[in-house]
Amino acid sequence: MKVAVIGLGLMGGSFALDIQSVFAEAEITGIDARAEHLEEALSLGIIHKSGTLEDLSESDWVILSIPVDKIADLLPKILDKVGSGTIVFDTGSTKANICKAVAEHPNRRNYVATHPIAGTEFSGPSAALKGLFKNQTNIICEVEKTAFKLQEQAVELFRKLGMRIRYMDPVSHDKHIAYVSHLSHVSSFMLGKTVIEKEKDERDIFDMAGSGFASTVRLAKSSPETWTSIFMENRENVSEALDEYIGNLQHFKQILDRAQAADAFAEMENTNKIKNILNGIN
Amino acid sequence: MKVAVIGLGLMGGSFALDIQSVFAEAEITGIDARAEHLEEALSLGIIHKSGTLEDLSESDWVILSIPVDKIADLLPKILDKVGSGTIVFDTGSTKANICKAVAEHPNRRNYVATHPIAGTEFSGPSAALKGLFKNQTNIICEVEKTAFKLQEQAVELFRKLGMRIRYMDPVSHDKHIAYVSHLSHVSSFMLGKTVIEKEKDERDIFDMAGSGFASTVRLAKSSPETWTSIFMENRENVSEALDEYIGNLQHFKQILDRAQAADAFAEMENTNKIKNILNGIN
Repeated sequence: MKVAVIGLGLMGGSFALDIQSVFAEAEITGIDARAEHLEEALSLGIIHKSGTLEDLSESDWVILSIPVDKIADLLPKILDKVGSGTIVFDTGSTKANICKAVAEHPNRRNYVATHPIAGTEFSGPSAALKGLFKNQTNIICEVEKTAFKLQEQAVELFRKLGMRIRYMDPVSHDKHIAYVSHLSHVSSFMLGKTVIEKEKDERDIFDMAGSGFASTVRLAKSSPETWTSIFMENRENVSEALDEYIGNLQHFKQILDRAQAADAFAEMENTNKIKNILNGIN
Repeated sequence: MKVAVIGLGLMGGSFALDIQSVFAEAEITGIDARAEHLEEALSLGIIHKSGTLEDLSESDWVILSIPVDKIADLLPKILDKVGSGTIVFDTGSTKANICKAVAEHPNRRNYVATHPIAGTEFSGPSAALKGLFKNQTNIICEVEKTAFKLQEQAVELFRKLGMRIRYMDPVSHDKHIAYVSHLSHVSSFMLGKTVIEKEKDERDIFDMAGSGFASTVRLAKSSPETWTSIFMENRENVSEALDEYIGNLQHFKQILDRAQAADAFAEMENTNKIKNILNGIN
Protein backbone atom coordinates (compact mmCIF):
# COMPACT_ATOMS: atom_id res chain seq x y z
CA MET A 1 0.00 0.00 0.00
CA LYS A 2 1.67 3.15 -1.24
CA VAL A 3 0.49 6.43 0.20
CA ALA A 4 1.63 9.90 -0.87
CA VAL A 5 0.87 12.73 1.53
CA ILE A 6 1.15 16.20 0.02
CA GLY A 7 1.40 18.81 2.76
CA LEU A 8 2.80 17.56 6.06
CA GLY A 9 0.92 19.73 8.55
CA LEU A 10 -1.69 18.93 11.18
CA MET A 11 -4.14 17.16 8.83
CA GLY A 12 -1.77 15.43 6.38
CA GLY A 13 0.56 14.38 9.20
CA SER A 14 -2.30 12.97 11.27
CA PHE A 15 -3.56 10.91 8.31
CA ALA A 16 -0.04 9.56 7.81
CA LEU A 17 0.21 8.51 11.47
CA ASP A 18 -3.26 6.91 11.57
CA ILE A 19 -2.77 5.02 8.33
CA GLN A 20 0.52 3.65 9.65
CA SER A 21 -1.15 2.36 12.79
CA VAL A 22 -4.00 0.64 10.90
CA PHE A 23 -1.98 -0.61 7.91
CA ALA A 24 1.41 -1.84 9.08
CA GLU A 25 2.54 -2.40 5.50
CA ALA A 26 1.77 1.17 4.36
CA GLU A 27 4.69 3.01 2.81
CA ILE A 28 4.26 6.74 3.28
CA THR A 29 5.92 9.20 0.90
CA GLY A 30 5.87 12.83 1.93
CA ILE A 31 5.76 15.78 -0.47
CA ASP A 32 6.05 19.31 0.89
CA ALA A 33 7.33 22.59 -0.55
CA ARG A 34 9.20 23.26 2.71
CA ALA A 35 12.38 21.22 3.14
CA GLU A 36 12.22 21.71 6.93
CA HIS A 37 8.75 20.14 7.05
CA LEU A 38 10.01 17.08 5.16
CA GLU A 39 12.94 16.71 7.55
CA GLU A 40 10.75 17.14 10.59
CA ALA A 41 8.16 14.65 9.30
CA LEU A 42 10.92 12.09 8.60
CA SER A 43 12.43 12.49 12.05
CA LEU A 44 9.00 12.22 13.73
CA GLY A 45 8.25 8.98 11.82
CA ILE A 46 5.28 10.59 10.06
CA ILE A 47 6.64 9.61 6.62
CA HIS A 48 9.11 6.96 5.44
CA LYS A 49 10.67 8.95 2.61
CA SER A 50 10.29 12.13 0.65
CA GLY A 51 9.16 12.18 -2.97
CA THR A 52 7.92 14.33 -5.84
CA LEU A 53 4.73 14.69 -7.84
CA GLU A 54 6.35 12.46 -10.51
CA ASP A 55 5.97 9.42 -8.21
CA LEU A 56 2.18 9.70 -7.96
CA SER A 57 1.36 7.29 -10.79
CA GLU A 58 2.52 4.45 -8.53
CA SER A 59 0.56 5.57 -5.48
CA ASP A 60 -2.53 3.75 -4.23
CA TRP A 61 -3.54 6.81 -2.23
CA VAL A 62 -2.78 10.50 -2.57
CA ILE A 63 -3.76 12.73 0.35
CA LEU A 64 -3.76 16.42 -0.45
CA SER A 65 -3.56 18.58 2.62
CA ILE A 66 -2.41 22.08 1.73
CA PRO A 67 -4.19 25.47 1.92
CA VAL A 68 -7.52 25.29 0.07
CA ASP A 69 -6.68 27.81 -2.67
CA LYS A 70 -3.59 25.74 -3.51
CA ILE A 71 -5.66 22.54 -3.60
CA ALA A 72 -7.79 24.01 -6.39
CA ASP A 73 -4.59 24.80 -8.34
CA LEU A 74 -2.72 21.56 -7.73
CA LEU A 75 -5.48 18.95 -7.84
CA PRO A 76 -5.93 19.00 -11.67
CA LYS A 77 -2.16 18.51 -12.09
CA ILE A 78 -2.25 15.60 -9.65
CA LEU A 79 -5.16 13.99 -11.50
CA ASP A 80 -3.11 14.31 -14.72
CA LYS A 81 -0.52 11.96 -13.22
CA VAL A 82 -2.46 9.32 -11.27
CA GLY A 83 -2.82 5.65 -12.17
CA SER A 84 -6.26 4.17 -12.93
CA GLY A 85 -6.66 2.77 -9.39
CA THR A 86 -5.19 5.70 -7.49
CA ILE A 87 -7.54 7.37 -4.99
CA VAL A 88 -6.91 11.06 -4.36
CA PHE A 89 -8.64 12.83 -1.48
CA ASP A 90 -8.12 16.25 0.07
CA THR A 91 -8.77 17.58 3.57
CA GLY A 92 -9.80 21.11 2.64
CA SER A 93 -12.32 23.05 4.72
CA THR A 94 -14.08 24.38 1.60
CA LYS A 95 -15.36 22.19 -1.21
CA ALA A 96 -17.21 24.17 -3.92
CA ASN A 97 -14.23 25.78 -5.70
CA ILE A 98 -12.17 22.61 -5.46
CA CYS A 99 -14.94 20.46 -6.96
CA LYS A 100 -15.43 23.06 -9.69
CA ALA A 101 -11.71 23.02 -10.55
CA VAL A 102 -11.83 19.32 -11.46
CA ALA A 103 -15.47 18.99 -12.63
CA GLU A 104 -14.46 18.30 -16.24
CA HIS A 105 -11.17 16.52 -15.56
CA PRO A 106 -10.94 13.15 -17.37
CA ASN A 107 -9.74 11.56 -14.11
CA ARG A 108 -12.40 13.17 -11.88
CA ARG A 109 -13.45 9.60 -10.98
CA ASN A 110 -10.17 9.11 -9.07
CA TYR A 111 -10.93 11.98 -6.70
CA VAL A 112 -12.95 11.89 -3.45
CA ALA A 113 -13.88 15.38 -2.19
CA THR A 114 -13.68 15.15 1.59
CA HIS A 115 -13.69 17.39 4.62
CA PRO A 116 -12.69 15.57 7.79
CA ILE A 117 -14.15 17.66 10.65
CA ALA A 118 -11.19 17.39 12.97
CA GLY A 119 -8.29 19.51 14.00
CA THR A 120 -6.62 21.55 16.68
CA GLU A 121 -5.34 25.13 16.76
CA PHE A 122 -1.77 23.94 16.08
CA SER A 123 0.02 23.58 12.74
CA GLY A 124 3.05 22.00 11.08
CA PRO A 125 4.32 18.38 11.27
CA SER A 126 4.72 18.52 15.07
CA ALA A 127 0.95 19.15 15.33
CA ALA A 128 0.18 15.73 13.78
CA LEU A 129 -1.81 13.59 16.22
CA LYS A 130 -2.49 9.87 16.20
CA GLY A 131 -6.22 9.23 16.57
CA LEU A 132 -7.23 12.76 15.50
CA PHE A 133 -10.02 11.43 13.28
CA LYS A 134 -11.49 8.85 15.66
CA ASN A 135 -15.24 9.42 16.20
CA GLN A 136 -15.16 12.50 13.97
CA THR A 137 -17.34 13.21 10.95
CA ASN A 138 -15.96 13.06 7.43
CA ILE A 139 -18.06 14.86 4.84
CA ILE A 140 -17.86 13.53 1.31
CA CYS A 141 -19.13 15.82 -1.45
CA GLU A 142 -20.59 14.79 -4.82
CA VAL A 143 -19.71 11.16 -4.13
CA GLU A 144 -21.48 10.10 -7.35
CA LYS A 145 -18.60 11.59 -9.35
CA THR A 146 -16.09 9.15 -7.85
CA ALA A 147 -15.74 5.68 -9.41
CA PHE A 148 -17.86 3.28 -7.36
CA LYS A 149 -15.01 0.89 -6.50
CA LEU A 150 -12.83 3.78 -5.38
CA GLN A 151 -15.69 5.20 -3.26
CA GLU A 152 -15.96 1.85 -1.51
CA GLN A 153 -12.25 1.71 -0.76
CA ALA A 154 -12.19 5.28 0.49
CA VAL A 155 -15.16 4.76 2.80
CA GLU A 156 -13.55 1.60 4.14
CA LEU A 157 -10.34 3.51 4.89
CA PHE A 158 -12.20 6.32 6.68
CA ARG A 159 -14.23 3.82 8.73
CA LYS A 160 -11.05 2.01 9.75
CA LEU A 161 -9.71 5.33 11.04
CA GLY A 162 -12.89 5.59 13.14
CA MET A 163 -14.75 8.25 11.13
CA ARG A 164 -18.49 8.68 10.53
CA ILE A 165 -19.39 9.44 6.91
CA ARG A 166 -21.86 12.13 5.81
CA TYR A 167 -22.71 12.97 2.20
CA MET A 168 -23.43 16.52 1.06
CA ASP A 169 -23.29 18.70 -2.02
CA PRO A 170 -20.30 21.08 -2.05
CA VAL A 171 -22.34 24.31 -2.18
CA SER A 172 -24.40 23.35 0.91
CA HIS A 173 -21.22 22.18 2.63
CA ASP A 174 -19.56 25.57 2.20
CA LYS A 175 -22.67 27.43 3.34
CA HIS A 176 -23.16 25.42 6.53
CA ILE A 177 -19.50 25.13 7.44
CA ALA A 178 -19.30 28.95 7.35
CA TYR A 179 -21.65 28.94 10.37
CA VAL A 180 -20.41 25.98 12.37
CA SER A 181 -16.68 26.39 11.80
CA HIS A 182 -15.44 29.42 9.87
CA LEU A 183 -17.49 31.95 11.90
CA SER A 184 -16.03 30.56 15.15
CA HIS A 185 -12.56 31.30 13.82
CA VAL A 186 -13.43 34.90 12.95
CA SER A 187 -15.09 35.46 16.34
CA SER A 188 -12.07 34.03 18.12
CA PHE A 189 -9.45 35.98 16.14
CA MET A 190 -11.34 39.25 16.58
CA LEU A 191 -11.96 38.64 20.28
CA GLY A 192 -8.25 38.08 20.73
CA LYS A 193 -7.51 41.24 18.76
CA THR A 194 -9.96 43.34 20.82
CA VAL A 195 -8.48 42.26 24.12
CA ILE A 196 -4.83 42.53 23.00
CA GLU A 197 -5.44 46.05 21.66
CA LYS A 198 -7.22 47.21 24.78
CA GLU A 199 -4.79 45.69 27.21
CA LYS A 200 -1.55 46.22 25.31
CA ASP A 201 -0.02 48.50 27.91
CA GLU A 202 -1.00 46.33 30.81
CA ARG A 203 0.04 42.81 30.02
CA ASP A 204 -0.37 41.79 33.64
CA ILE A 205 -4.10 42.14 33.18
CA PHE A 206 -4.05 38.77 31.46
CA ASP A 207 -3.60 37.30 34.94
CA MET A 208 -7.29 38.10 35.19
CA ALA A 209 -8.16 35.87 32.26
CA GLY A 210 -9.58 32.49 33.17
CA SER A 211 -10.46 29.30 31.36
CA GLY A 212 -13.52 30.91 29.74
CA PHE A 213 -11.40 33.46 27.90
CA ALA A 214 -8.89 30.77 26.95
CA SER A 215 -11.68 28.65 25.49
CA THR A 216 -13.21 31.44 23.37
CA VAL A 217 -9.86 32.63 21.96
CA ARG A 218 -8.25 29.21 21.49
CA LEU A 219 -8.85 29.28 17.73
CA ALA A 220 -6.98 32.61 17.49
CA LYS A 221 -3.80 30.52 17.68
CA SER A 222 -4.65 28.91 14.32
CA SER A 223 -2.44 29.20 11.24
CA PRO A 224 -2.95 32.51 9.35
CA GLU A 225 -1.86 30.78 6.13
CA THR A 226 -4.50 28.03 6.37
CA TRP A 227 -7.24 30.44 7.41
CA THR A 228 -6.55 33.24 4.95
CA SER A 229 -6.98 30.63 2.26
CA ILE A 230 -10.24 29.30 3.74
CA PHE A 231 -11.71 32.77 4.30
CA MET A 232 -10.89 33.88 0.76
CA GLU A 233 -12.32 30.71 -0.81
CA ASN A 234 -15.52 30.93 1.22
CA ARG A 235 -15.73 34.68 1.68
CA GLU A 236 -19.32 35.18 0.56
CA ASN A 237 -20.71 32.64 2.99
CA VAL A 238 -18.46 33.79 5.84
CA SER A 239 -19.41 37.41 5.20
CA GLU A 240 -23.11 36.54 5.38
CA ALA A 241 -22.66 34.59 8.63
CA LEU A 242 -20.59 37.46 10.04
CA ASP A 243 -23.35 39.91 9.15
CA GLU A 244 -25.87 37.94 11.19
CA TYR A 245 -23.43 37.55 14.09
CA ILE A 246 -22.70 41.31 14.13
CA GLY A 247 -26.47 42.00 14.06
CA ASN A 248 -27.00 39.78 17.09
CA LEU A 249 -24.13 41.45 18.97
CA GLN A 250 -25.53 44.91 18.17
CA HIS A 251 -28.94 43.82 19.44
CA PHE A 252 -27.41 42.55 22.67
CA LYS A 253 -25.47 45.78 23.09
CA GLN A 254 -28.73 47.71 22.76
CA ILE A 255 -30.26 45.52 25.47
CA LEU A 256 -27.33 46.40 27.75
CA ASP A 257 -27.49 50.10 26.91
CA ARG A 258 -31.20 50.14 27.76
CA ALA A 259 -30.67 48.01 30.89
CA GLN A 260 -33.33 45.52 29.73
CA ALA A 261 -32.54 42.72 32.17
CA ALA A 262 -35.50 40.52 31.19
CA ASP A 263 -34.48 40.66 27.52
CA ALA A 264 -30.87 39.80 28.34
CA PHE A 265 -32.11 36.82 30.37
CA ALA A 266 -34.36 35.65 27.51
CA GLU A 267 -31.53 35.91 24.95
CA MET A 268 -29.30 33.72 27.10
CA GLU A 269 -31.99 31.24 28.10
CA ASN A 270 -32.93 30.70 24.45
CA THR A 271 -29.31 30.06 23.58
CA ASN A 272 -28.77 27.69 26.51
CA LYS A 273 -30.30 24.93 24.37
CA ILE A 274 -26.90 24.78 22.70
CA LYS A 275 -26.21 22.34 25.58
CA ASN A 276 -28.22 19.64 23.82
CA ILE A 277 -26.78 20.47 20.44
CA LEU A 278 -23.24 20.19 21.73
CA ASN A 279 -23.82 16.74 23.17
CA GLY A 280 -21.77 14.40 21.13
CA ILE A 281 -19.20 16.98 20.02
CA ASN A 282 -15.90 16.48 21.81
CA MET B 1 -14.15 26.71 62.42
CA LYS B 2 -17.68 27.71 61.48
CA VAL B 3 -18.33 28.54 57.84
CA ALA B 4 -21.60 29.82 56.41
CA VAL B 5 -22.00 29.53 52.64
CA ILE B 6 -24.79 31.66 51.19
CA GLY B 7 -25.69 30.46 47.70
CA LEU B 8 -24.88 26.82 46.99
CA GLY B 9 -24.03 26.94 43.30
CA LEU B 10 -20.80 26.35 41.40
CA MET B 11 -18.71 28.89 43.33
CA GLY B 12 -20.16 28.62 46.85
CA GLY B 13 -20.34 24.84 46.61
CA SER B 14 -16.73 24.57 45.40
CA PHE B 15 -15.50 26.74 48.31
CA ALA B 16 -17.42 24.50 50.72
CA LEU B 17 -15.77 21.37 49.28
CA ASP B 18 -12.26 22.83 49.23
CA ILE B 19 -12.50 24.20 52.77
CA GLN B 20 -13.63 20.78 53.99
CA SER B 21 -10.63 19.10 52.41
CA VAL B 22 -8.13 21.57 53.90
CA PHE B 23 -9.79 22.05 57.30
CA ALA B 24 -11.13 18.73 58.56
CA GLU B 25 -12.78 20.42 61.54
CA ALA B 26 -14.73 22.95 59.44
CA GLU B 27 -18.48 22.92 60.02
CA ILE B 28 -20.29 24.16 56.93
CA THR B 29 -23.74 25.71 57.19
CA GLY B 30 -25.59 26.27 53.93
CA ILE B 31 -28.06 29.07 53.26
CA ASP B 32 -29.98 29.15 50.00
CA ALA B 33 -33.35 30.56 48.96
CA ARG B 34 -34.08 27.32 47.06
CA ALA B 35 -35.01 24.38 49.26
CA GLU B 36 -33.98 21.93 46.52
CA HIS B 37 -30.46 23.39 46.44
CA LEU B 38 -30.14 22.93 50.22
CA GLU B 39 -31.26 19.32 49.95
CA GLU B 40 -28.96 18.61 47.04
CA ALA B 41 -25.98 20.23 48.80
CA LEU B 42 -26.67 18.17 51.94
CA SER B 43 -26.90 14.92 49.99
CA LEU B 44 -23.71 15.71 48.04
CA GLY B 45 -21.81 16.39 51.30
CA ILE B 46 -21.18 20.02 50.29
CA ILE B 47 -22.69 21.31 53.57
CA HIS B 48 -23.24 19.75 56.97
CA LYS B 49 -26.49 21.53 57.82
CA SER B 50 -28.78 24.27 56.65
CA GLY B 51 -29.13 27.55 58.49
CA THR B 52 -30.46 31.11 58.33
CA LEU B 53 -28.99 34.59 58.29
CA GLU B 54 -29.68 34.76 62.06
CA ASP B 55 -26.84 32.27 62.68
CA LEU B 56 -24.16 34.47 61.10
CA SER B 57 -23.01 36.15 64.34
CA GLU B 58 -21.41 32.86 65.33
CA SER B 59 -19.67 32.26 62.00
CA ASP B 60 -15.93 32.60 61.54
CA TRP B 61 -16.41 32.84 57.79
CA VAL B 62 -19.32 33.92 55.61
CA ILE B 63 -19.00 33.18 51.89
CA LEU B 64 -21.49 35.05 49.75
CA SER B 65 -21.97 33.47 46.35
CA ILE B 66 -25.20 34.65 44.78
CA PRO B 67 -25.91 36.78 41.66
CA VAL B 68 -23.96 40.04 41.87
CA ASP B 69 -26.98 42.37 42.04
CA LYS B 70 -28.26 40.39 45.04
CA ILE B 71 -24.82 40.59 46.71
CA ALA B 72 -25.06 44.40 46.71
CA ASP B 73 -28.51 44.12 48.38
CA LEU B 74 -27.71 41.42 50.93
CA LEU B 75 -24.15 42.27 51.97
CA PRO B 76 -25.08 45.30 54.17
CA LYS B 77 -27.67 43.13 56.00
CA ILE B 78 -25.06 40.44 56.54
CA LEU B 79 -22.55 42.95 57.90
CA ASP B 80 -25.27 44.13 60.34
CA LYS B 81 -25.24 40.67 61.89
CA VAL B 82 -21.61 39.54 61.96
CA GLY B 83 -19.41 39.12 65.04
CA SER B 84 -16.24 41.23 65.45
CA GLY B 85 -13.98 38.44 64.14
CA THR B 86 -16.22 37.22 61.33
CA ILE B 87 -14.72 37.43 57.83
CA VAL B 88 -17.19 37.91 55.00
CA PHE B 89 -16.11 37.49 51.39
CA ASP B 90 -18.03 37.26 48.14
CA THR B 91 -17.27 35.61 44.82
CA GLY B 92 -18.95 38.13 42.53
CA SER B 93 -17.62 38.84 39.04
CA THR B 94 -18.14 42.62 39.46
CA LYS B 95 -16.78 44.63 42.36
CA ALA B 96 -17.50 48.38 42.03
CA ASN B 97 -21.21 48.40 42.94
CA ILE B 98 -20.72 45.88 45.73
CA CYS B 99 -17.89 47.89 47.30
CA LYS B 100 -19.98 51.04 46.98
CA ALA B 101 -22.94 49.40 48.73
CA VAL B 102 -20.91 48.84 51.92
CA ALA B 103 -18.43 51.74 51.70
CA GLU B 104 -19.90 53.47 54.76
CA HIS B 105 -21.00 50.39 56.66
CA PRO B 106 -19.70 50.36 60.27
CA ASN B 107 -18.57 46.75 59.77
CA ARG B 108 -16.88 47.32 56.38
CA ARG B 109 -13.67 46.08 58.05
CA ASN B 110 -15.16 42.57 58.28
CA TYR B 111 -15.58 42.32 54.50
CA VAL B 112 -13.01 41.19 51.90
CA ALA B 113 -14.05 42.06 48.32
CA THR B 114 -12.85 39.14 46.20
CA HIS B 115 -13.21 37.77 42.70
CA PRO B 116 -11.86 34.25 42.36
CA ILE B 117 -11.12 33.81 38.63
CA ALA B 118 -12.38 30.27 38.34
CA GLY B 119 -15.46 28.52 37.11
CA THR B 120 -17.03 26.33 34.51
CA GLU B 121 -20.11 26.75 32.32
CA PHE B 122 -22.22 24.67 34.74
CA SER B 123 -24.38 25.83 37.64
CA GLY B 124 -26.17 24.62 40.79
CA PRO B 125 -24.82 22.44 43.67
CA SER B 126 -23.98 19.55 41.33
CA ALA B 127 -21.54 21.87 39.52
CA ALA B 128 -19.38 22.25 42.67
CA LEU B 129 -15.86 20.95 42.04
CA LYS B 130 -13.11 20.08 44.50
CA GLY B 131 -9.89 21.85 43.54
CA LEU B 132 -11.65 24.46 41.35
CA PHE B 133 -9.51 27.27 42.78
CA LYS B 134 -6.12 25.57 42.66
CA ASN B 135 -3.55 27.64 40.73
CA GLN B 136 -6.19 30.26 39.94
CA THR B 137 -6.00 34.00 40.59
CA ASN B 138 -8.04 35.63 43.34
CA ILE B 139 -8.44 39.37 42.97
CA ILE B 140 -8.91 41.33 46.20
CA CYS B 141 -10.25 44.87 45.85
CA GLU B 142 -9.66 47.80 48.23
CA VAL B 143 -7.88 45.51 50.67
CA GLU B 144 -6.97 48.51 52.84
CA LYS B 145 -10.60 48.73 53.97
CA THR B 146 -10.49 45.29 55.58
CA ALA B 147 -9.13 44.98 59.16
CA PHE B 148 -5.47 43.95 58.91
CA LYS B 149 -5.82 40.77 60.99
CA LEU B 150 -8.81 39.66 58.94
CA GLN B 151 -6.90 40.38 55.69
CA GLU B 152 -4.13 38.11 56.91
CA GLN B 153 -6.49 35.27 57.74
CA ALA B 154 -8.32 35.59 54.42
CA VAL B 155 -5.10 35.56 52.40
CA GLU B 156 -3.92 32.51 54.35
CA LEU B 157 -7.17 30.69 53.55
CA PHE B 158 -6.95 31.54 49.84
CA ARG B 159 -3.31 30.43 49.70
CA LYS B 160 -4.20 27.12 51.38
CA LEU B 161 -6.75 26.55 48.63
CA GLY B 162 -3.93 27.08 46.14
CA MET B 163 -4.82 30.56 44.88
CA ARG B 164 -2.55 33.40 43.74
CA ILE B 165 -3.53 36.80 45.15
CA ARG B 166 -3.71 40.01 43.09
CA TYR B 167 -4.75 43.40 44.47
CA MET B 168 -6.73 45.91 42.41
CA ASP B 169 -9.15 48.79 42.81
CA PRO B 170 -12.78 47.83 42.09
CA VAL B 171 -13.29 50.28 39.21
CA SER B 172 -10.22 48.99 37.32
CA HIS B 173 -11.29 45.42 38.10
CA ASP B 174 -14.69 45.91 36.48
CA LYS B 175 -13.19 47.62 33.44
CA HIS B 176 -10.58 44.94 32.74
CA ILE B 177 -12.79 41.97 33.56
CA ALA B 178 -15.29 43.24 30.95
CA TYR B 179 -12.60 42.50 28.33
CA VAL B 180 -11.06 39.28 29.60
CA SER B 181 -14.22 37.58 30.86
CA HIS B 182 -17.57 39.26 30.28
CA LEU B 183 -16.96 39.95 26.56
CA SER B 184 -16.13 36.25 26.01
CA HIS B 185 -19.54 35.36 27.42
CA VAL B 186 -21.37 37.78 25.10
CA SER B 187 -19.41 36.55 22.08
CA SER B 188 -20.17 32.95 22.95
CA PHE B 189 -23.90 33.46 23.63
CA MET B 190 -24.36 35.43 20.40
CA LEU B 191 -22.34 32.96 18.34
CA GLY B 192 -24.58 30.18 19.67
CA LYS B 193 -27.66 32.26 18.85
CA THR B 194 -26.47 33.00 15.30
CA VAL B 195 -25.85 29.36 14.48
CA ILE B 196 -29.02 28.05 16.15
CA GLU B 197 -31.15 30.60 14.27
CA LYS B 198 -29.56 29.86 10.94
CA GLU B 199 -29.63 26.12 11.27
CA LYS B 200 -32.93 25.71 13.13
CA ASP B 201 -34.58 23.70 10.39
CA GLU B 202 -31.61 21.48 9.81
CA ARG B 203 -30.48 20.20 13.17
CA ASP B 204 -28.42 17.48 11.53
CA ILE B 205 -26.07 20.18 10.34
CA PHE B 206 -24.60 20.23 13.83
CA ASP B 207 -22.93 16.96 12.87
CA MET B 208 -20.64 19.28 10.94
CA ALA B 209 -19.60 21.13 14.09
CA GLY B 210 -16.23 20.16 15.50
CA SER B 211 -14.23 20.86 18.61
CA GLY B 212 -13.51 24.44 17.49
CA PHE B 213 -17.18 25.36 17.49
CA ALA B 214 -17.68 23.58 20.82
CA SER B 215 -14.84 25.58 22.35
CA THR B 216 -16.10 28.98 21.18
CA VAL B 217 -19.71 28.39 22.28
CA ARG B 218 -18.95 26.54 25.54
CA LEU B 219 -19.76 29.61 27.63
CA ALA B 220 -23.23 29.82 26.01
CA LYS B 221 -24.21 27.02 28.39
CA SER B 222 -23.69 29.37 31.36
CA SER B 223 -26.46 30.34 33.78
CA PRO B 224 -28.71 33.16 32.41
CA GLU B 225 -29.48 34.21 36.00
CA THR B 226 -25.81 34.67 36.97
CA TRP B 227 -24.94 36.42 33.73
CA THR B 228 -27.95 38.74 33.48
CA SER B 229 -26.91 40.02 36.87
CA ILE B 230 -23.25 40.48 35.85
CA PHE B 231 -24.09 42.16 32.55
CA MET B 232 -26.51 44.60 34.21
CA GLU B 233 -24.05 45.49 36.99
CA ASN B 234 -21.19 46.03 34.55
CA ARG B 235 -23.17 47.15 31.53
CA GLU B 236 -21.23 50.30 30.71
CA ASN B 237 -17.89 48.50 30.58
CA VAL B 238 -19.31 45.52 28.70
CA SER B 239 -21.03 47.82 26.20
CA GLU B 240 -17.74 49.62 25.54
CA ALA B 241 -15.86 46.34 25.05
CA LEU B 242 -18.63 45.09 22.79
CA ASP B 243 -18.41 48.25 20.71
CA GLU B 244 -14.73 47.63 20.03
CA TYR B 245 -15.33 43.96 19.30
CA ILE B 246 -18.12 44.79 16.81
CA GLY B 247 -15.82 47.37 15.16
CA ASN B 248 -13.11 44.74 14.70
CA LEU B 249 -15.60 42.25 13.24
CA GLN B 250 -16.94 44.88 10.81
CA HIS B 251 -13.39 45.66 9.71
CA PHE B 252 -12.69 41.97 9.11
CA LYS B 253 -15.94 41.62 7.15
CA GLN B 254 -14.84 44.52 4.94
CA ILE B 255 -11.53 42.74 4.33
CA LEU B 256 -13.47 39.64 3.22
CA ASP B 257 -15.86 41.63 1.05
CA ARG B 258 -12.92 43.28 -0.70
CA ALA B 259 -11.00 39.98 -0.95
CA GLN B 260 -7.93 41.55 0.69
CA ALA B 261 -6.02 38.36 1.43
CA ALA B 262 -2.85 40.08 2.68
CA ASP B 263 -4.86 42.12 5.18
CA ALA B 264 -6.71 39.05 6.44
CA PHE B 265 -3.35 37.32 6.91
CA ALA B 266 -1.93 40.31 8.81
CA GLU B 267 -4.96 40.52 11.13
CA MET B 268 -4.57 36.86 12.06
CA GLU B 269 -0.80 36.91 12.33
CA ASN B 270 -0.94 39.90 14.69
CA THR B 271 -3.47 38.11 16.86
CA ASN B 272 -1.47 34.87 16.90
CA LYS B 273 0.63 36.34 19.71
CA ILE B 274 -2.30 35.44 21.95
CA LYS B 275 -0.41 32.10 22.13
CA ASN B 276 2.14 33.62 24.49
CA ILE B 277 -0.49 35.46 26.48
CA LEU B 278 -2.49 32.30 27.01
CA ASN B 279 0.48 30.42 28.38
CA GLY B 280 -0.25 29.82 31.99
CA ILE B 281 -4.04 29.98 31.65
CA ASN B 282 -5.57 26.54 32.01
